[in-house]
Amino acid sequence: MSTRDTVLAAAQRLLTTDPTASMAQIATAAGVGRATVHRHFASREDLLHEIGVRSLERWAESQRAAGLAEVVAAGDADRIRACLEVLIDAFVVDADEIGIALTDPTVLNAPDLRERADALFTQEVTLYAAAQDAGVLRADVPARWLGHSLYGLLIAVRDALVSGDIARRDAEALVRSTFLEGGAAR
Amino acid sequence: MSTRDTVLAAAQRLLTTDPTASMAQIATAAGVGRATVHRHFASREDLLHEIGVRSLERWAESQRAAGLAEVVAAGDADRIRACLEVLIDAFVVDADEIGIALTDPTVLNAPDLRERADALFTQEVTLYAAAQDAGVLRADVPARWLGHSLYGLLIAVRDALVSGDIARRDAEALVRSTFLEGGAAR
Repeated sequence: MSTRDTVLAAAQRLLTTDPTASMAQIATAAGVGRATVHRHFASREDLLHEIGVRSLERWAESQRAAGLAEVVAAGDADRIRACLEVLIDAFVVDADEIGIALTDPTVLNAPDLRERADALFTQEVTLYAAAQDAGVLRADVPARWLGHSLYGLLIAVRDALVSGDIARRDAEALVRSTFLEGGAAR
Repeated sequence: MSTRDTVLAAAQRLLTTDPTASMAQIATAAGVGRATVHRHFASREDLLHEIGVRSLERWAESQRAAGLAEVVAAGDADRIRACLEVLIDAFVVDADEIGIALTDPTVLNAPDLRERADALFTQEVTLYAAAQDAGVLRADVPARWLGHSLYGLLIAVRDALVSGDIARRDAEALVRSTFLEGGAAR
């Protein structure tokens, strides 16, 4: 791994559990000096912007790996269901590893990142809409609301993991089952 | 309303839709000069801290108004169900009006606010646990996870309202039904 990647990996891990971590703390976590961090990132904002870029790349890659576009085009209920599961599992890994990107103001408000995030969200909503058409997801709510609610559950799982309220091995199943079935007793 | 309250009300409204709004923009939204804003709040951080204090007061007041402690003590399923609905409706109003407090790093990381938020969350989890015991909420997930998932849905409803993806009049019903029933088709 390049030094730049080492710093980024340490930063995204540390910032997800401690969103106010300083550049000095990030350097310590990466096992490098502060000067090295500053050689790669002029400011904390720059570093967060790069974390934002990477998190959007992971988001796009998860959509590709799950075959989202093809599954939407096919419209088959079983394939949609499987695609949703694969996506949710990938998102939970991301929420655990790079969850800072879900709520950090630098990431959320950089115009370039925001535009890309909006495009990915809109792309993803085509899956929720196809899932509604195929009878997989409920059709009495806006497809975009389903997208927002899954995003909210990813923040929930990040926070629950950081605070130790759930075990890592249970995270995917909790998000899948809460997104689909909710919290009411049966 | 005092000038201080006018500034705070304008700030919480503006920051919920635009989390990066500056002190100058907040002054304009409040219809006062920048000097007036700065007379009441030395910095943007001070102002956000005060918004955090108010949002925690509203949270505590919602728990009191819903009779959370008494309902938990009684343990009756119908009362628990009603209390949950009242709480969710109040939280949705808060997420719409002061939603910046749900994710702002200044609010989330100030030690005094964090301690108070942890206490309120723990208090609220007693209701989810009572709801599990009474057969209202599912008992196969941690009670604290149910709390995190509702918190995530409040971020979802804030974002969905800001982006115009749902109508304000539908917000409470969407959160209630998604929290309880999830997104799967029946």
